[in-house]
Amino acid sequence: MSEAMQHVGGAEINLGEAELKALCHKVLTRHGFSKPHVEAISEALVAAEMSGSRSHGLYRLMGFVATLNNGGVMPKAVPVVEDAAPSVVKVDAKGGFSSLAFQQGAPELVSKAKANGIAILAINHCVHATALWVEIERLTREGLVAIACNPTQSYMAPHGGSQPLLGTNPIAFGWPRGDGNPYVFDFATSAIARGDIELHRRQGDEIPLGWGVDREGMPSQDPTEVLDHGAMLPFGEHKGSALAIMVELIAGPLIGDMLSIESTEHDQGKGSLPYHGELIIAMDPARLSGGNTQQHMLRSERLFDMVKQQGARLASERRYKARQTHQAQGVTLSRALYEDVMKLIL
Amino acid sequence: MSEAMQHVGGAEINLGEAELKALCHKVLTRHGFSKPHVEAISEALVAAEMSGSRSHGLYRLMGFVATLNNGGVMPKAVPVVEDAAPSVVKVDAKGGFSSLAFQQGAPELVSKAKANGIAILAINHCVHATALWVEIERLTREGLVAIACNPTQSYMAPHGGSQPLLGTNPIAFGWPRGDGNPYVFDFATSAIARGDIELHRRQGDEIPLGWGVDREGMPSQDPTEVLDHGAMLPFGEHKGSALAIMVELIAGPLIGDMLSIESTEHDQGKGSLPYHGELIIAMDPARLSGGNTQQHMLRSERLFDMVKQQGARLASERRYKARQTHQAQGVTLSRALYEDVMKLIL
Repeated sequence: MSEAMQHVGGAEINLGEAELKALCHKVLTRHGFSKPHVEAISEALVAAEMSGSRSHGLYRLMGFVATLNNGGVMPKAVPVVEDAAPSVVKVDAKGGFSSLAFQQGAPELVSKAKANGIAILAINHCVHATALWVEIERLTREGLVAIACNPTQSYMAPHGGSQPLLGTNPIAFGWPRGDGNPYVFDFATSAIARGDIELHRRQGDEIPLGWGVDREGMPSQDPTEVLDHGAMLPFGEHKGSALAIMVELIAGPLIGDMLSIESTEHDQGKGSLPYHGELIIAMDPARLSGGNTQQHMLRSERLFDMVKQQGARLASERRYKARQTHQAQGVTLSRALYEDVMKLIL
Repeated sequence: MSEAMQHVGGAEINLGEAELKALCHKVLTRHGFSKPHVEAISEALVAAEMSGSRSHGLYRLMGFVATLNNGGVMPKAVPVVEDAAPSVVKVDAKGGFSSLAFQQGAPELVSKAKANGIAILAINHCVHATALWVEIERLTREGLVAIACNPTQSYMAPHGGSQPLLGTNPIAFGWPRGDGNPYVFDFATSAIARGDIELHRRQGDEIPLGWGVDREGMPSQDPTEVLDHGAMLPFGEHKGSALAIMVELIAGPLIGDMLSIESTEHDQGKGSLPYHGELIIAMDPARLSGGNTQQHMLRSERLFDMVKQQGARLASERRYKARQTHQAQGVTLSRALYEDVMKLIL
């Protein structure tokens, strides 16, 4: 047991990056995930935890194990990478978590994008595991611009409707900034992440108007009503709704995979993590800028500066600040979370 | 003079598609646009007018001529098409309107998308002319899925800011539906189109809260204050703002073209239409679906049906309904608009 782990006693526990990773490894190995899955998932969970993205951090381990116990994920799935067209890589995740499928398809995506200017990675038959920005950062490190999205399950009504149909369908984007941290955003097309409504429920709080409707389609501030009987709502009214529909289509039927409603049907009420496809587009500035690539890319710095000068926040700043802090000081987990995770290795 | 044109006398005038096109041709030819530009622009304007998209219809002719008189557009520009990479077509519009540049690049975009699975058309140095959905429909007719976007001029503050920096940066998407009309959306990433605020000003109306801020960065309902001294606001708070920044980057520096703020500086206060780049991505379902393409594409029909069954509207329905009506009955222009257009050919 590490020095940090010996500090368990109070309400919180502090762990460094290596300790977080060791803990993830232990849990996932204990539950029968193959070594490549253990490594891919641990890397993504620890990256999220280190970046202050708690909803995609170690907390996910409980959902992973529950999904495994439901038969909702294949712990030893071996992804199959297919060179489907000059600018298309397809990876069949074979029912495993998405992280390994992404890792195995990424090198081919990078080389196709660099050779052809733009390329697409379509992951099929994967179980949603981690935040998209983890994958986006992998691509910006190669100097590529990237967009990723996936459907989830039918939690959300389209704008103007009242029944759950669409997923919370995240869209993520990344822009490389030389040696600096990339500009990255990653958000649900719902008004708020599902996890935030769940958090309100756990804490017995009302939710703000605009997040969801009740079973009658009327605005509701009751998290249980919205989550279990009504529907979540899209961000930005008809525009966010249209974007959520776009994600359904391009990361669903376009790549031969499921809509959110089909994923919900597939789950048969087991409450597993969403089983779906994922779409990642990568673009190479060197092939698109028409020369003077570095000079053009640097012009974006003026935009970022002007955003910050007027007091607005750049999408990814909070994440990088958290990362810096956590690298220096470790991550503080609540005692409750730590004990829940420890129960998984009993 | 056509029969319809003889009906001028009341407050309105009814014109059929051929008459609208003839009128556009007359205006643009009279002002020295080359024949290819006359045809490309007329086609786009008439398509918009026939589809009930008035803000991108004949009304635009006045802005086109004003921009021409400012030296803001090259009326005889000959676009140069370049095969920049296996999945990249670049078209240098040479300061002409975007419609012709798009038309000339589209065949190569289509063939690259069909050969490689995904391809990109980057238009540089063009003047914004028409709605993006016109171009999107050209690609869905080929069975392709398409996404398009462009910066404009610095009209909008980022979320959390108060100074004009970003463009109204439209994003459009199209999904082919066999013989039926495609699913298409096309919207500004601002809370509302700039033209709608201008319409309120002309009518002496207040604008709703959320559309813009005054020169102090405070919420304003005064259209003149928002347009001339303050800033427009993005749709969907930080998410719409992030998408607007994405458009700045991928249809700006990524393709070696200008940010909205650079386009505003380039204009030097002349009030010309935005000069910028445009980015169009096309994807071929046949290369992405992994087989059974038609069957997969048909699954999207279930999604569209379920959207409509709960009383929500599909993004493009209103446009197709207007098109049907106008094809049968012609388009009714206000007497004021008709006279403004006629003044351009005196």
